[in-house]
Amino acid sequence: MFEGEEESGGQALERFVPQNKNLLRADTALISDTHMASRDLPIIISGLRGICYVHLSIAGAEQDLHSGSFGGVIDNPINVLGHVISKLKDQRGHILIPGFYDSIRPLNQSEHELLADYPVNEENLLIEAGAPMLWGEPEYSPSERLGIRPTLDINGIIGGYTGPGAKTVLPSSVSAKVSMRLVPDQDPHEIFELFQAYLQSIVPPTVSAICEYVHGAPGSVVELSRPALRAATSAYESVFNRQPVFRREGGTIPVVALFQRHLQLETVLMGFGLPDDNIHSPNERFYLPNFYRGIETAIYFLSNFADGVKDR
Amino acid sequence: MFEGEEESGGQALERFVPQNKNLLRADTALISDTHMASRDLPIIISGLRGICYVHLSIAGAEQDLHSGSFGGVIDNPINVLGHVISKLKDQRGHILIPGFYDSIRPLNQSEHELLADYPVNEENLLIEAGAPMLWGEPEYSPSERLGIRPTLDINGIIGGYTGPGAKTVLPSSVSAKVSMRLVPDQDPHEIFELFQAYLQSIVPPTVSAICEYVHGAPGSVVELSRPALRAATSAYESVFNRQPVFRREGGTIPVVALFQRHLQLETVLMGFGLPDDNIHSPNERFYLPNFYRGIETAIYFLSNFADGVKDR
Repeated sequence: MFEGEEESGGQALERFVPQNKNLLRADTALISDTHMASRDLPIIISGLRGICYVHLSIAGAEQDLHSGSFGGVIDNPINVLGHVISKLKDQRGHILIPGFYDSIRPLNQSEHELLADYPVNEENLLIEAGAPMLWGEPEYSPSERLGIRPTLDINGIIGGYTGPGAKTVLPSSVSAKVSMRLVPDQDPHEIFELFQAYLQSIVPPTVSAICEYVHGAPGSVVELSRPALRAATSAYESVFNRQPVFRREGGTIPVVALFQRHLQLETVLMGFGLPDDNIHSPNERFYLPNFYRGIETAIYFLSNFADGVKDR
Repeated sequence: MFEGEEESGGQALERFVPQNKNLLRADTALISDTHMASRDLPIIISGLRGICYVHLSIAGAEQDLHSGSFGGVIDNPINVLGHVISKLKDQRGHILIPGFYDSIRPLNQSEHELLADYPVNEENLLIEAGAPMLWGEPEYSPSERLGIRPTLDINGIIGGYTGPGAKTVLPSSVSAKVSMRLVPDQDPHEIFELFQAYLQSIVPPTVSAICEYVHGAPGSVVELSRPALRAATSAYESVFNRQPVFRREGGTIPVVALFQRHLQLETVLMGFGLPDDNIHSPNERFYLPNFYRGIETAIYFLSNFADGVKDR
């Protein structure tokens, strides 16, 4: 199955999968859309975050106003949005939307151990990001913050005068794209309802706020003891001469939850990307040797899995 | 004197005036860059706000990052800017920069009375603005908030992905244009220093912030008892058959303070704009009958002023 629409939400697949259950019957799903810890250390992903993507706009006056003639008597939607953003998440990374964390199931012991066994390399993470320092909820490790904690990020913002030089304008509106990475058990539609209700409760009557559900997908947890996982582990070992580590992944692959829900089909996430591939960013790339190693690993996987299925 | 650069800061005039004091010797200055209360009620402006215009940028990672792979471990400059905006001014309109209000001289009794005598019409103000309701420091009247209180407004903001649809990006930077309308006795360069110091104190070490002074001008107060003002009052009466009111203006005309400082020259602000001219906004316009009435009023002014100067 080839999916080319995932980065823009993948709504077509969301309709296609439940309508074509027979066509899609399978022993397992194998997806190569994740990455390795480094060139020689493969990762099998044991859980994915979901997502809820929201478009938010705040409007005040009908048109841009002179900031001298109206500054001090008419509210400014960008100033308001600043306050809204500060109330969505505090500076230590805690999301402030009431009820946001309520549905999150605590990790069991073995899930905790897996996360602690294979921590992300903080130094490498900083180099990959090119950021001055790490950040996030101080009571969770970086692996936990990426794998089992939800996030809320403003992905883009625009409003008022953004050209060169100065314009003394009191803007009529501003908009922002907001995405929340969810962890398993958080439903994107429920999260959107919580977001919307909270937004309306914190926006003053001097402006109006609208938010729109752009797309969403639940997170998913992979059962770690299946034959398909054993086949993938062994395939990685054959090609990379190294046992893969298991890790929760911060990104979202919506079809994994779709397959679980509609086809009762579990997915193996066997990826070949590298941490410095610059995904979703300028100069995005793929390390060519991994293209050939990926093909090789997939061949081993199919062979191992067929043997495993025969053994059952 | 014709000035065509004022809306972009007027830096050339700032150099020209002190270098050409002899050329610019005059009995008074007359500027028509203000507006009337309505089509039949002229205003003589008794004070103008100054301005300090700042360009602010906040940068985190070297490039945009995948919000799944890095969300929760790398800080987001737009989220940070939201917190910064919320800390620059509270939602009731109080500017939170330490020292910001310190240099403001309290109004004397007659200045207070003038403001109370000619309040802005709140209903008209709302119609002109096309906003749902008025807003601002609750302990000051709208006239005071426009005339004698400084403001802080985000004039524009841009960062991250702002195209159509969704992109799950953790942006590397964001920038905003911030203008502060100042009242007399607030020096724009001093205000910029306060802004900059406060900004650095509230920005976390996970990002870096830069701010740049774009342009500035101090506010000014007009002495109300001069012959030029009497000449303007009488000129308005001859053409509009109505006594003008006196009011502090929320906007900024930097040359007024320049003339005071370098030429010891006082300005009469005799304007013919209308509140619904949409200044600095789409469909900006000028009411044509006021073009001819303005010429007529200027003729009366010159004649009255010449008589007044002769009388001295």
